[in-house]
Amino acid sequence: ALHLPILAGMSLAILLMQLKLAGVHTLASTVHGAEAVGARFSASQSSDAAPPLFAPWEVDWCQPVALLVGNEGAGLPEELERSAEVRVRIPMASGVDRFAVTHKVDSLNAAAAAAVLFYEAARQRKLLTGSGANP
Amino acid sequence: ALHLPILAGMSLAILLMQLKLAGVHTLASTVHGAEAVGARFSASQSSDAAPPLFAPWEVDWCQPVALLVGNEGAGLPEELERSAEVRVRIPMASGVDRFAVTHKVDSLNAAAAAAVLFYEAARQRKLLTGSGANP
Repeated sequence: ALHLPILAGMSLAILLMQLKLAGVHTLASTVHGAEAVGARFSASQSSDAAPPLFAPWEVDWCQPVALLVGNEGAGLPEELERSAEVRVRIPMASGVDRFAVTHKVDSLNAAAAAAVLFYEAARQRKLLTGSGANP
Repeated sequence: ALHLPILAGMSLAILLMQLKLAGVHTLASTVHGAEAVGARFSASQSSDAAPPLFAPWEVDWCQPVALLVGNEGAGLPEELERSAEVRVRIPMASGVDRFAVTHKVDSLNAAAAAAVLFYEAARQRKLLTGSGANP
């Protein structure tokens, strides 16, 4: 059952501005990132540089945050990703087959990525277990 | 692409014994748990009591561990869950609708639950990001 409130038909630009005015930090879940995770903005970077990239555990989820998650094929539109304050990427292990050959592992699907990020937020917020359950 | 080595047709009882002999700790992902997360075995519990229940962040994932994940409808068979050393449950928030009514949230599906638990293991093991990516 889906219990998330859904707001449809809203301009993303207006929503982002409202979040900014309300003091809500925007995090973009990303599939990109040639830079090492944990790299921070340096003063020498040009203004159109991508937002700094962090691992989920490096982000402070106890602040008010809005998480932007794209679709699993393409991720977020590049413009949206650049408009976020911070980008967050879930580290992926490489797959090693029985012949010890390393393969690139596919990205998580959007639901699994969101589950991981919400988990990290819950962990930091010390969410206590409720009546829910998981397999 | 699936890069996990798969071993089929093996007796679970034999596998569990081999894991035990090899010093690998067994964690059962669970949908149950009336007890509070973090409750520990007490000496007064009977021998057929369920293994202690922890939140994922309370488990030491840096040890050699085997994670048992059941199917999303029924979870693990009860006997298997009881044979594990520790049970682990992902805390679930309650859903609150726009009328401020609280609803029980469905459990995560098996893939999302596994993603969360592998993420916690990677976080504790300080896995650095590779060439992979996620949405």
